[in-house]
Amino acid sequence: MSGNTFGSHFKVMTYGESHGRAIGVVIDGCPAGLTVKQEEIQVDLDRRRPGQSAIVTQRKEGDHVEILSGVFEGRSTGTPISMIIYNQDQRSKDYGHIAEKYRPSHADFTYQEKFGHRDYRGGGRSSARETAARVAAGAIAKALLKTQGIQVFGYVSQVGHLKLDKSHTEIDRHIIEENVIRCPDAELARQMEAFIREVRKDGDTVGGVVTGVVTGCPVGLGAPAFDKLHADLGKAMLSINACKGFEYGSGFQGVTWRGSRHNDIFEKIGDKIVTTTNHSGGIQGGISNGMDIYFRVAFKPVATIMQSQPSVDQSGKETTVDGKGRHDPCVVPRAVAIVEAMAALVLADHLLRSRSDKI
Amino acid sequence: MSGNTFGSHFKVMTYGESHGRAIGVVIDGCPAGLTVKQEEIQVDLDRRRPGQSAIVTQRKEGDHVEILSGVFEGRSTGTPISMIIYNQDQRSKDYGHIAEKYRPSHADFTYQEKFGHRDYRGGGRSSARETAARVAAGAIAKALLKTQGIQVFGYVSQVGHLKLDKSHTEIDRHIIEENVIRCPDAELARQMEAFIREVRKDGDTVGGVVTGVVTGCPVGLGAPAFDKLHADLGKAMLSINACKGFEYGSGFQGVTWRGSRHNDIFEKIGDKIVTTTNHSGGIQGGISNGMDIYFRVAFKPVATIMQSQPSVDQSGKETTVDGKGRHDPCVVPRAVAIVEAMAALVLADHLLRSRSDKI
Amino acid sequence: MSGNTFGSHFKVMTYGESHGRAIGVVIDGCPAGLTVKQEEIQVDLDRRRPGQSAIVTQRKEGDHVEILSGVFEGRSTGTPISMIIYNQDQRSKDYGHIAEKYRPSHADFTYQEKFGHRDYRGGGRSSARETAARVAAGAIAKALLKTQGIQVFGYVSQVGHLKLDKSHTEIDRHIIEENVIRCPDAELARQMEAFIREVRKDGDTVGGVVTGVVTGCPVGLGAPAFDKLHADLGKAMLSINACKGFEYGSGFQGVTWRGSRHNDIFEKIGDKIVTTTNHSGGIQGGISNGMDIYFRVAFKPVATIMQSQPSVDQSGKETTVDGKGRHDPCVVPRAVAIVEAMAALVLADHLLRSRSDKI
Amino acid sequence: MSGNTFGSHFKVMTYGESHGRAIGVVIDGCPAGLTVKQEEIQVDLDRRRPGQSAIVTQRKEGDHVEILSGVFEGRSTGTPISMIIYNQDQRSKDYGHIAEKYRPSHADFTYQEKFGHRDYRGGGRSSARETAARVAAGAIAKALLKTQGIQVFGYVSQVGHLKLDKSHTEIDRHIIEENVIRCPDAELARQMEAFIREVRKDGDTVGGVVTGVVTGCPVGLGAPAFDKLHADLGKAMLSINACKGFEYGSGFQGVTWRGSRHNDIFEKIGDKIVTTTNHSGGIQGGISNGMDIYFRVAFKPVATIMQSQPSVDQSGKETTVDGKGRHDPCVVPRAVAIVEAMAALVLADHLLRSRSDKI
Repeated sequence: MSGNTFGSHFKVMTYGESHGRAIGVVIDGCPAGLTVKQEEIQVDLDRRRPGQSAIVTQRKEGDHVEILSGVFEGRSTGTPISMIIYNQDQRSKDYGHIAEKYRPSHADFTYQEKFGHRDYRGGGRSSARETAARVAAGAIAKALLKTQGIQVFGYVSQVGHLKLDKSHTEIDRHIIEENVIRCPDAELARQMEAFIREVRKDGDTVGGVVTGVVTGCPVGLGAPAFDKLHADLGKAMLSINACKGFEYGSGFQGVTWRGSRHNDIFEKIGDKIVTTTNHSGGIQGGISNGMDIYFRVAFKPVATIMQSQPSVDQSGKETTVDGKGRHDPCVVPRAVAIVEAMAALVLADHLLRSRSDKI
Repeated sequence: MSGNTFGSHFKVMTYGESHGRAIGVVIDGCPAGLTVKQEEIQVDLDRRRPGQSAIVTQRKEGDHVEILSGVFEGRSTGTPISMIIYNQDQRSKDYGHIAEKYRPSHADFTYQEKFGHRDYRGGGRSSARETAARVAAGAIAKALLKTQGIQVFGYVSQVGHLKLDKSHTEIDRHIIEENVIRCPDAELARQMEAFIREVRKDGDTVGGVVTGVVTGCPVGLGAPAFDKLHADLGKAMLSINACKGFEYGSGFQGVTWRGSRHNDIFEKIGDKIVTTTNHSGGIQGGISNGMDIYFRVAFKPVATIMQSQPSVDQSGKETTVDGKGRHDPCVVPRAVAIVEAMAALVLADHLLRSRSDKI
Repeated sequence: MSGNTFGSHFKVMTYGESHGRAIGVVIDGCPAGLTVKQEEIQVDLDRRRPGQSAIVTQRKEGDHVEILSGVFEGRSTGTPISMIIYNQDQRSKDYGHIAEKYRPSHADFTYQEKFGHRDYRGGGRSSARETAARVAAGAIAKALLKTQGIQVFGYVSQVGHLKLDKSHTEIDRHIIEENVIRCPDAELARQMEAFIREVRKDGDTVGGVVTGVVTGCPVGLGAPAFDKLHADLGKAMLSINACKGFEYGSGFQGVTWRGSRHNDIFEKIGDKIVTTTNHSGGIQGGISNGMDIYFRVAFKPVATIMQSQPSVDQSGKETTVDGKGRHDPCVVPRAVAIVEAMAALVLADHLLRSRSDKI
Repeated sequence: MSGNTFGSHFKVMTYGESHGRAIGVVIDGCPAGLTVKQEEIQVDLDRRRPGQSAIVTQRKEGDHVEILSGVFEGRSTGTPISMIIYNQDQRSKDYGHIAEKYRPSHADFTYQEKFGHRDYRGGGRSSARETAARVAAGAIAKALLKTQGIQVFGYVSQVGHLKLDKSHTEIDRHIIEENVIRCPDAELARQMEAFIREVRKDGDTVGGVVTGVVTGCPVGLGAPAFDKLHADLGKAMLSINACKGFEYGSGFQGVTWRGSRHNDIFEKIGDKIVTTTNHSGGIQGGISNGMDIYFRVAFKPVATIMQSQPSVDQSGKETTVDGKGRHDPCVVPRAVAIVEAMAALVLADHLLRSRSDKI
C-alpha cells in the first residue's frame, strides 16, 4: 500500500507511470519565501534526461517541467508546490510484446502478484521514469539548502571494474559535468565511456557506483534512534531504481579496521570543533558533525539487455523475452542527478526538523 | 526532533537512556489475537544482553522485560503493547570522568550541539542500550511473522578480515547459536574468537558484518517508489548503532557484473514461479518475489577503546580521553539479535501494509 | 507547515490556488482493482461546482477533472491516482482591489502573517476552491466504500433559522437532489430558497447546517484513543472552509439528557446485534457499531458580503473593503458534496485500517 | 489498527488498560531545554483524578506519575519523555459480572467485534482511565507553551440544562478551581452540584459542556487545508471519551446569523492588528489570528448508571446489566483537565510546526 510519499517535514508525493499521461510531484512543507526558478529545476532534469549523450538511452523525453501551484511572484508561498511533466513518448506499441511476459529481474512479476493488475507499458510505475519527479522536487530542496550554505553533489566513481581511487577531497568537482560519464577524472572517464560502448555492442549492460557528497552541513542534522541522518540517506538511495547497496564514511571497508585507527580525533581550529580524519563520514550518532558527508551508492547492471532470455508469462508458461527499445547500457551517468536529488530531500527534511531541537 | 518512532502500520516508539530509570518500547498496531509469551521475548533479549560470553562487555544488565499493556490472557488485544526494561546498572560514577569531554567517534559532541543539553551518563540516549527495546519489539514482530510462515535469522559473516566465504544457502543455520560469535562455521568462529581476544588484549576493537536472511516471505511485500522493501530494510539496519553500510542480493559486488549474468531467470516449479538464481536478493522492483531475502550489514569497530586518546572538551579545550569501563571489543555477536529484530519490524510492517494492496 | 495531506492509509494530498494554473489531488493508498470512472467523479464535482443554480455563485468554473495516473484499463493499479482540474476563470483583475487589504473574517491577515508572502488572488490557497480536489478524491473513496456496501450521503438540514425537524431516518433521501437547496423536504426547501434570495438582495449572507449520514457501515471501523471514528470525522468536517461546529448522534442536545434515556439498549434481531435507539450515532467507544452514522456540520455565513466594511491593509492603515465578484449567499447547498467527500475519505481510510485488526 | 499516537511534531503515544499493570505515555518531539517538574504534572493529574470530591467517582487511584526518561538534571534532553502511572486499583472482581455482557452505550460490543478479543476489566483500553496519560503529556505541553506566553484553561459551562450564560471574557477564571464543579460562577456551581447529587441519588447520570480557552496565542498557528487549527482541536476534543460535539467561536449559533453581523472587523490598536469582535474564535482560515481561541466541548451522560438495564451477551443471548462500582454521575468536572491537556497538545504541535513556515 502507498509508498509514494517521502519525508516528514519537507514531504513529497510522486505519481505517474512511464507511459501514462504525466508524471509529477507535490511538495507539502516547503517554507514560504524561497525563490523558485523553473529554469533551475530544468537544469537538473536535463542532467537526468534520456538522450543527453551517446551512451545513454536515446528515448525522446523532453522532460519539460511546469509549476502548477505554491509559487507566486517567483517565491514559494508555504502551500503545496505541484510540478508536472507530461509524457511525450507514449508509443505503447513498443511494449505490447511484453504485456504478458515477465522480464527477468524487472518488477513485472512482483507488481502483477501484489496488485493483481498492472500498467505493463514500459514498466508503468516501476519504471525509473518516476525519478524525474524526484529530481524536480530535489531541485527545490537544493535551493532551500543553498540558503543555509549547504551543497550537494555527486559523481560516478565506478563503472564495472573501473574504479576511481581518489576520495572526494582529492577530486576537482568542476570536471564532473565536463564528460558524459560525470566522473571527475578525465582519463578514467574516457576508459569508462569506452567500456560502456563495448558492453552496449554486446547487447549487454553493466553496473556502477555513484558517490554523493554534502558540504557546508551544519552540526545537528539527523535524529536519535531510527531517523539517523545516514539511515534516512540510506533509505533514500536504496529507493532509487537498481540500487543494491549504500555505505557512508569508512563503509564496508571500515569493518576491517581497528577502533584506534577508525576513531576521528577532535580538535579545535579557530572557533570550530572539527575532526582530524573523517572516517565517520560527517555523521556521529546519526547526527551531522559539520564535516563533509560522503557516501557510495551501488547500482546493478540494467535488467533490460538486447539479448534473448528465457522466462515465463503470467500464466506460468515458458516464453522468451527479446530486448527491444532504447535503454541505458549503464545507469550511473544519469543516476548522479537522482542521487543528488534524494540527498537534498533528506537534508531539507532534517534541516526543517532541526528547528524544533531546542525550546 | 523526534526520530524515535519506526514503522507506519506496526509502529513502535522507543525511549530511555543508558543510565536512566528504564528503557522501553510501545507497539501501536500489533493485530489482536497474537499469542505473546514473555519468555520468548526474553530469549532474544538474552542474545543481545551484555555479559553473555567472555568476549562481550561484562556490564551486568539483566535486561528483564515486563509487559505492561496490550496483552490479555496471553494474547494481544489490538491495543498498544508496552514493554519496559528497568536499568539495574546505574553506576553514574563510571561516567563522571567524561561528563564534559567529547569521546572520539561518539555522539557526545553532536548531541551537545544539537540539543544544547544532554544526559552524558553512558552516552544517554545515543547508547546502544536503546536497541534492547528494539529487540523486545522485534520478538513480537517475529511471532506475528511466524503465523504466516515467515522466518528471520542472522549470523556473523565477518570479523575484521576474517570473512565467511559461503552464501546463506550453504550454511547450517543450526550451528549459529552454538558458538559465542554466532558464526555458522565452527572453525572460522574459533579464529574470530581468538582474533577478538587478541584485539581486546591490545585495548582495541574491531568491526564486522552481520548477514540477515528472511525465509518464507510471500510475494508482494514492499511498496513502489520510496518504501521499497530493501529501502526500508536498509534504513532499519543503518539505524542500528555503529552501522556503516548495507547491501542486499548481489550488493556492491553486483556492480561489476554484466546484466546478462546478473539477471535472475524465471521458471515455474510446481505451481510456483521462482528464479533460477537469486542475485536480486528476493526483492524485485522493491517488492518481495518469494525467494529468500538476504543482506549484509557492516559495523565499524566500537569507538570506546582501552587506550588514551587526545580530544577536546565542551569548551573546546584540549584534553585526554582514557578508556574505562566494560565494553565490547567487537559488537557483531550481540548485533545479530538486533539485526533480526529490525528486519522483523520491517517485514511485520509491510505484511500489514500488504493487506490493502487489493480491494 | 504542510497540512495538505489527509489520511494514513487512503492518503490524499491536495494542491492548488484559487486563481493559479490548476488545483488537484494525489491519492496514495487506493487498493488495486477498483473500477474508476471519470464521469462518476464528474457527477460529484458538478454538485459542488459554482454556477449550478440561481442561488449559488455564478462564477464560471467548469471543474473538468482529468485522471493523470494510477488507473489503467478502467481500474486502479494500486499506484498513486493523480487528478487535475485546470482553472479556467483566472481573471486576476477581479481581485486586484484587495491585494493589500485584509478582508474581514477571511484568511488574508493570518496567511500574510504566517507565511510573510501570499497569493492574494481570490484567496489563493485559502479559497474554498481547494475543496474541489477533495470532492474528486472523495468520489473514488465512495466507489471503494460501495464495494463493501457502505454509502455516504448528505443534505441541508438548516439555513439560518429555518431548521428541518426530522431525523435522517424520517426523510426521503431521493428528494435531496430535486431542489437547489439539497433539503429533503420540498416545502422547507422552498422557504430556504426564498430566504437565501432575500439575504442576497441585502448584499448579505447566511449560515446553515449540513447533515451527513453513513449507511451500511460494518461493525469495527475506527480506532481506540485518538483516532476514534467520530474524531476523524469531526476533523474532516472542521477542515472544510467556513465550518464552525460538528456533532454526532445526540450531539450538544444529548448533554441535557440523563444516562437512562441516552443509553442505547442492545438486542439481537436475526443474527445481528443492534441497538433499539441510536443516540450513539452509530459509534461506540470510537468504533462503528453497525447502526447508521449521522452527524451535523455547522457552516457560518460566508465572509464575502456585498456591502462596504471597514478594515485595515497590510501596513495597518485603515481602509474600506467593498464586496465585489460572484459569491455564494449561503454555502450549504454546495457544501453537501464536500461533506460527503470528506466522510468518504475518513471511512475509506478506516476501512483499510481495519484490515489489520486481527492476525 | 493503531490510533494511539497523536501529533506530528510534538508526538505522543499512550498505552495501558484500566485494570492492567500500568498506563503511560511517551512524548517524541519535545524540544530540549524545557524545565520539567514532576510536581507540576501531578497537579493536573490530581485535577483529573477520581475521588477528588464528593460528586465524582470514589475509585481510589492515586495516579502517581513517574518520569522514566528524557529529562536530565530537571530539563528535557530532546529525547523521548516517558511517563508511567502504575495502576493501584486492580480489583478484577468488580468487573467479573460483565465479562461477557455488553454494557449499553459502552465499547464492549464494538471492541469485541473489532478485535475478536478484549480486556473486559473495567473497559480495558476503552476506559477513560487512558486520559490520565494524556493529562501527563498535556502538562509538559503546557510548560512548553508557557515559554511563549500561551496559556490554556477550561471550565464547566453547562451541566444538564444548567447553562452559564456568560462568555469566557466575562468570567473570573480564578474562581474556577474554587468549587468542585469547576464552574466560574459560584452560584451556578452550587446549583450544578445539587443537581448532580440529585441525579446520582436516582442512580442516573447527566451530561455537560466544558469550555476551553487559549490566551496569548501568537498569529500563525494552524495550517491550510486539512490541519486547520480548529480541525485539530476538534479532533483532539472528540477523541476524549463521551464527547459528542465540538464548536468554536460562534459555533452552531453562528449558523443563524448574517455575514454582516458575523464578520469580525480588523483594526489596529498600538502596533497590533486585532478584531473588534471575535466571532471567529481566534482562528481565521484555520490559522490563529492572535485573539483568544475559545471552544465548547459536549459530553454525553456517563453510560454506567446504577440501574438495571436489558442487554445481550457475547453470544447474543438476552441478559441484564446491573450498575455496580464507583462511577461519575457527571464527567465534566474531571474532564476540564483533559480538555486543557488535549488543547495544549494541539497547540504545542502547531507551535513547533510553525517554525518551518518561512525560510
